[in-house]
Amino acid sequence: MRRLHHHPLCPFSRKVRLCLGEKRLDAELIEEKPWERPPHLLALNPAGNLPVLCEAENGPTVADAQAIAEYLDEAHPDPGLLGPDPKARAEARRLTAWFDHKFFDEVTRHLWGQKLWSRLAGGPPPDSRVLRAGKANIHTHLTYIAWLAERRRWLAGNSLSLADLAAAAQLSVIDYSGDVPWNDHPLAKDWYARLKSRPAFRPLLADTAPGITPPPHYADLDF
Amino acid sequence: MRRLHHHPLCPFSRKVRLCLGEKRLDAELIEEKPWERPPHLLALNPAGNLPVLCEAENGPTVADAQAIAEYLDEAHPDPGLLGPDPKARAEARRLTAWFDHKFFDEVTRHLWGQKLWSRLAGGPPPDSRVLRAGKANIHTHLTYIAWLAERRRWLAGNSLSLADLAAAAQLSVIDYSGDVPWNDHPLAKDWYARLKSRPAFRPLLADTAPGITPPPHYADLDF
Repeated sequence: MRRLHHHPLCPFSRKVRLCLGEKRLDAELIEEKPWERPPHLLALNPAGNLPVLCEAENGPTVADAQAIAEYLDEAHPDPGLLGPDPKARAEARRLTAWFDHKFFDEVTRHLWGQKLWSRLAGGPPPDSRVLRAGKANIHTHLTYIAWLAERRRWLAGNSLSLADLAAAAQLSVIDYSGDVPWNDHPLAKDWYARLKSRPAFRPLLADTAPGITPPPHYADLDF
Repeated sequence: MRRLHHHPLCPFSRKVRLCLGEKRLDAELIEEKPWERPPHLLALNPAGNLPVLCEAENGPTVADAQAIAEYLDEAHPDPGLLGPDPKARAEARRLTAWFDHKFFDEVTRHLWGQKLWSRLAGGPPPDSRVLRAGKANIHTHLTYIAWLAERRRWLAGNSLSLADLAAAAQLSVIDYSGDVPWNDHPLAKDWYARLKSRPAFRPLLADTAPGITPPPHYADLDF
């Protein structure tokens, strides 16, 4: 059977789980602690990060969340998650990179990195200046999501794409620690509510991490 | 005509210029100073970074180096730069991400960020501790390149791929400041010499930046 090495609160693992869910592909989930640098994980992926996909039988082992997402879209093309033509696909990839890198660097790293990852990995207590920076930066991104969602049915166009999944994956881990100011950004909230109600999203809402309880609205579809 | 908004010493701009060169696609190069956040650049790409590709006539505007590379490979598929099948393409994308993100974060950001980018953008003088970290980290990456190049003709397999171009683009800007310890890594040096002698590489070797002179070996094919 297909296996995905992941962590339940890793945004990049979540992006790939959403891809698998949208494509209705099963995978056995193997939880990893990448901060311990386990040798079996380094053997699968010398970069040591998550997620890593191992296809069944003689299928490939694929590391790097975007490489996995592109692989899944090529090997299991229905439904496609990038778009119908090079121009649409370029826009989906531009926005996917926006959330994987820009949003991660400006928001997720500050909030999730300080609060969740540090606690899971036994890091130092959160630095309030870093948390403040993340909490300030998230508004720009939610404003951008709202701007896009007002003009298009989904972030990259009229079809759901990897851009929506990448954005939702990042936001979902921040929402787990209650740090998304949804009420200031109603259009972004509407877009997220549509994603949250999809069957692919359900397993993420059931995830828990030891010692960290999400706020009540986290798993509520009508938040 | 196709236009590429770039900076001559931006490694991500260089990755796309190498793609264009390998595909024998012409582009007018428009030099930008992204650190000044010029409004025309933000209008093309709200992320404000480089490169940005504008296809001729009614063609799309594409931002984000990897989105541009994927777009070029779809819209202009000959020669392909990702590989013949999903497994090979996954490996090319894994390694491309390695150099775009892991190498950039561990090496380029420290050396190029401190020495070249700070100087071009008028930043503070280099921090010797950061430079030391970059100089230590580069050995692991050159060892990995050598390991790959000993087992495969090119980094991701038997054909030249985007992984080679991504790696060479990062290394080329570090080489511009004379910080690549080539003589400690002869197999990596052989691989780079093969890339450096390709016609697509030639324009990069002719680039200069005001006030920063590269070492004599920078443009020497027999370095």
